[in-house]
Amino acid sequence: MEKGGITYPEGFSASAVHCGIKKEKKEDLTLIFSSHPCVAAGTFTTNQFKSYSLLWTLKNIKNPVHAVLVNSGNANTCNGKENYRYTELLAKELSKIIGIEPSSVLIGSTGIIGKVLPYEKIVNALPELVRTLSPENHTLAARGIMTTDRVPKEFQIATGIKGRHKEVYIGGMTKGAGMINPCMATMLCFITTDAVIESDLLQEALKEAVEESFNMVNVDNDMSTNDMVICLANGMAKNKKIQSGSEEYQKFLSALKTTCTELAKMIASDGEGATKLIEVKVKGGWCMKDARRVAKRVAGSNLFKSAVYGAYPNWGRILAAAGSVSARMDVKNVEVSLCGIKVYNGAPVEYDEEKLHKIMEKVDKITVEMDLKKGSFSATGWGCDLTEDYVKINKE
Amino acid sequence: MEKGGITYPEGFSASAVHCGIKKEKKEDLTLIFSSHPCVAAGTFTTNQFKSYSLLWTLKNIKNPVHAVLVNSGNANTCNGKENYRYTELLAKELSKIIGIEPSSVLIGSTGIIGKVLPYEKIVNALPELVRTLSPENHTLAARGIMTTDRVPKEFQIATGIKGRHKEVYIGGMTKGAGMINPCMATMLCFITTDAVIESDLLQEALKEAVEESFNMVNVDNDMSTNDMVICLANGMAKNKKIQSGSEEYQKFLSALKTTCTELAKMIASDGEGATKLIEVKVKGGWCMKDARRVAKRVAGSNLFKSAVYGAYPNWGRILAAAGSVSARMDVKNVEVSLCGIKVYNGAPVEYDEEKLHKIMEKVDKITVEMDLKKGSFSATGWGCDLTEDYVKINKE
Repeated sequence: MEKGGITYPEGFSASAVHCGIKKEKKEDLTLIFSSHPCVAAGTFTTNQFKSYSLLWTLKNIKNPVHAVLVNSGNANTCNGKENYRYTELLAKELSKIIGIEPSSVLIGSTGIIGKVLPYEKIVNALPELVRTLSPENHTLAARGIMTTDRVPKEFQIATGIKGRHKEVYIGGMTKGAGMINPCMATMLCFITTDAVIESDLLQEALKEAVEESFNMVNVDNDMSTNDMVICLANGMAKNKKIQSGSEEYQKFLSALKTTCTELAKMIASDGEGATKLIEVKVKGGWCMKDARRVAKRVAGSNLFKSAVYGAYPNWGRILAAAGSVSARMDVKNVEVSLCGIKVYNGAPVEYDEEKLHKIMEKVDKITVEMDLKKGSFSATGWGCDLTEDYVKINKE
Repeated sequence: MEKGGITYPEGFSASAVHCGIKKEKKEDLTLIFSSHPCVAAGTFTTNQFKSYSLLWTLKNIKNPVHAVLVNSGNANTCNGKENYRYTELLAKELSKIIGIEPSSVLIGSTGIIGKVLPYEKIVNALPELVRTLSPENHTLAARGIMTTDRVPKEFQIATGIKGRHKEVYIGGMTKGAGMINPCMATMLCFITTDAVIESDLLQEALKEAVEESFNMVNVDNDMSTNDMVICLANGMAKNKKIQSGSEEYQKFLSALKTTCTELAKMIASDGEGATKLIEVKVKGGWCMKDARRVAKRVAGSNLFKSAVYGAYPNWGRILAAAGSVSARMDVKNVEVSLCGIKVYNGAPVEYDEEKLHKIMEKVDKITVEMDLKKGSFSATGWGCDLTEDYVKINKE
């Protein structure tokens, strides 16, 4: 195994073990570590019920960060306030073993809500977790944060920004399961970079990248109790510090957006029970918000998702979904294409329904293009089809 | 067959025929008729793509109304603007046969979007439709507006308001199918009354009744392209005209609310693929909007709906759904009961999980009670479970 994902940038290592939260013998505890202290940025759930792990991370994200500890199988949410103390103790125990400050440890959790955090199981596994830290363990780390995910989700990219000895890199890993109803799914994403960049600018870049990636699979901005995207920058590429508005910043932002977009699409593709990715490209929006609202709504419509599963070109459901949101559109001239075939231009377009059905059956990605005919703003939203398996997975 | 449903009030008759829109030999065209002209009130979809039938009705609802013509199997939406002319012609043809003004005919449609209205089939069936009008045909009329509904949905109630010879009655019928994702479902409801009441006051009463009934199964106020609730009052009970703020108005409003609530619950129970009704009662809201938002959100959560299908007491999904909306709540003291059993009071409550699972398996209605601990406002929302059958119905 080589470096990749979150260990692709210089100076990051990772590990994962099975500590016993999951009943099956699968990794359920992940550690990301940077020998150099990092500046950190994050975006977090807006849910009013927040995980104790997330509350701890919110408190400490402005500090120099060395480590991120993540467990899967338990959300550490709505499980009684004594669990905040357990969370604090976890940070203390981990920091003692590594020899860092407790305030430099961030914590994330994903899994079932309302169960007491199995504190002792986690503490007992910490020494092994630290001992096995290695740049080669990035995929193992990505496995350790999975719940109903079918595959680990990693991405890495070179930014084109020159450092002293090496180019600036960005790496990331994410998990997300029930993205068919994303408002409830726990989505975690950890991004690393060896860039030299200040905390405020990193936060600005991350916010912009998340808005057009993860938030575009997050219908209605409803999020789970545990959602977090965290970006750590340890500065080990020793590049000239990235300044706001510079060419370097544009390169960094562009690479960060690619990282977030690719990871977000992996989440949508791996939605619970999903067989197809849905990509909704909206143009002609009067403003960005309008374009985004429509893209998210269409990608999130249960009826359209069901039609995609059946490879049924029911464009009426696309229009009904689009028209249901508060976004300006020229309803008499709106255009819709499905898998590249025009199906509506203010009135039904004649097309070969059987041919389109065959195409929809064959492809892994269903593309919807919609022109609102009101302006010049564009946005893309992602979702996946709704299948019987989604129901099977979630009824238990 | 006796009078009932929409023909329960004095002076209303109904009929339904198979005119050939539906492939199967099932009623697909319904007529409601009142010999006396009615004042009419209505609430309509907020979708930007509106059915041509609905546009015609919007234009004519302030007129004295004699008839409502409703077809199922074709939404008459996004099917090209020549279909508005067909709609107009339908009103003209029907009015000619009956001997009334075209402007006294309202029209509703439900079914697939984007198909040309089979105008000739409908016109050819009008004479038989008029010939077979009878107070006994109320259930037949309720069948004529069904799409994927499994049962016709009717309700009738006596108001307790004295008329000259008889008490004031209210009757109604409704249809609604994909209420699991209600934003796309077509919901139609027709209510009749023999009350003497002015148009503005009838509209006020209907709006209030719809807000706490149909709109509480309509997550996010997204509606289909065809949704309408219409109430016709023909005055044949000859009661003293109902005045705003009077005791009679309270009686009328209360009976109208009962009618709307019972019909709305029938829609939720008969949701596509549904096996259980979900009723979410929220109290302790800081304002009415807060209470309603939470009730609708919980009743509309795919993950909670899936859990209900599996009879799995996953109260974490209730909290996550509630916390995701913008509504004030005392998150440290919120209380939740499921089927009468307290499961959360700011922290998990110990309860017999196996016993609750057994109860959830057995009952037809799953009741969630939630106290937001912020004020004195209450609201109730309705939904149904999410099953594999929902996906099966909608993938084709």
